[in-house]
Amino acid sequence: MQLLKDRIRAEGRVLPGNIIKVDGFLNHRVDTKLMREMAKEFGRLFDLTGLTAVLTVEASGIALGAICAEEFGVPLIFAKKAKSDNIEGGLYQSEIFSYTYKKKVTLLMSSQWLGPKDKVLIIDDFLANGEALRGLVDIVRQAGATLLGLGIAIEKGFQGGGDRLRAQGENVQSLAIIERADENGIVFRDEP
Amino acid sequence: MQLLKDRIRAEGRVLPGNIIKVDGFLNHRVDTKLMREMAKEFGRLFDLTGLTAVLTVEASGIALGAICAEEFGVPLIFAKKAKSDNIEGGLYQSEIFSYTYKKKVTLLMSSQWLGPKDKVLIIDDFLANGEALRGLVDIVRQAGATLLGLGIAIEKGFQGGGDRLRAQGENVQSLAIIERADENGIVFRDEP
Repeated sequence: MQLLKDRIRAEGRVLPGNIIKVDGFLNHRVDTKLMREMAKEFGRLFDLTGLTAVLTVEASGIALGAICAEEFGVPLIFAKKAKSDNIEGGLYQSEIFSYTYKKKVTLLMSSQWLGPKDKVLIIDDFLANGEALRGLVDIVRQAGATLLGLGIAIEKGFQGGGDRLRAQGENVQSLAIIERADENGIVFRDEP
Repeated sequence: MQLLKDRIRAEGRVLPGNIIKVDGFLNHRVDTKLMREMAKEFGRLFDLTGLTAVLTVEASGIALGAICAEEFGVPLIFAKKAKSDNIEGGLYQSEIFSYTYKKKVTLLMSSQWLGPKDKVLIIDDFLANGEALRGLVDIVRQAGATLLGLGIAIEKGFQGGGDRLRAQGENVQSLAIIERADENGIVFRDEP
């Protein structure tokens, strides 16, 4: 999506450790007009016939997820990250490794809100190693729900998480795939 | 706001410890149509002339905050909760006490995105003891920005946080104020 790529090039900053900082419009300050354009683009990229819910994970996926859910006329459900051992019953759980916090994190979602009749689209702001998305896909499977696809704003292609999900047969559509980010700038996939 | 009160009465569950569970439409599964109606109601309740940003705090305030920010045509900025001691420079910080997690939490916001020229509206899904909102107000003061008001979906009036903020002169508008919640049901403020 050219609009997003242009914003990344204009405002994104590359930090040591392959960190791409886009907190001026995506995950700290959020440009909601851009989110709406991204939601419309996901609407063009996916066949959302019968969609019943958009899924994401707290925290930074929620803004884009909410705008997408409203765009498609369905609820947003966001998985929570376990912060205590007091986990109630009636929950789908999936353990992932958080590279950001260098530890295991458990994703939780109430089984009340997702079941075999659901057709869902997973939305997230970032895809790097793909652990959070792997956890969400796991939860969709546990629920017996149908996964229509995974829509991502920015994929860090060089970290391989997106291609691993594609190799498993998932329909992953990322609006901007970064293949290289260093002191020489940012290179997107499929660009000369 | 009658629409919200009706939903709370129809779908909210009162748990021991004065916990009011509304995770079917507000803070786990999110009814984005309801969020849009709430955003419009905030637009009627506040004078938003010159508004430059909506502020909230991760995670559950983000969905409502994003819809409000889009409704008012400004960016959303969400404060983050510190998860490590590696706090970068260039940040506003405010320490609050989290009753949910029974510990101190530091709210963080990049000073790059908020300054003396900003006019902001704070939005959150819940107001109980008011610690998170006190932290956000503190950050607005540190930035030298103008606070136009605080818009809340559900206030637990019996916990006093909202009235403490009002006593300090803040313009707090809650769409539903719960005065009592127990085995006999839910009673809203200003209801017979």
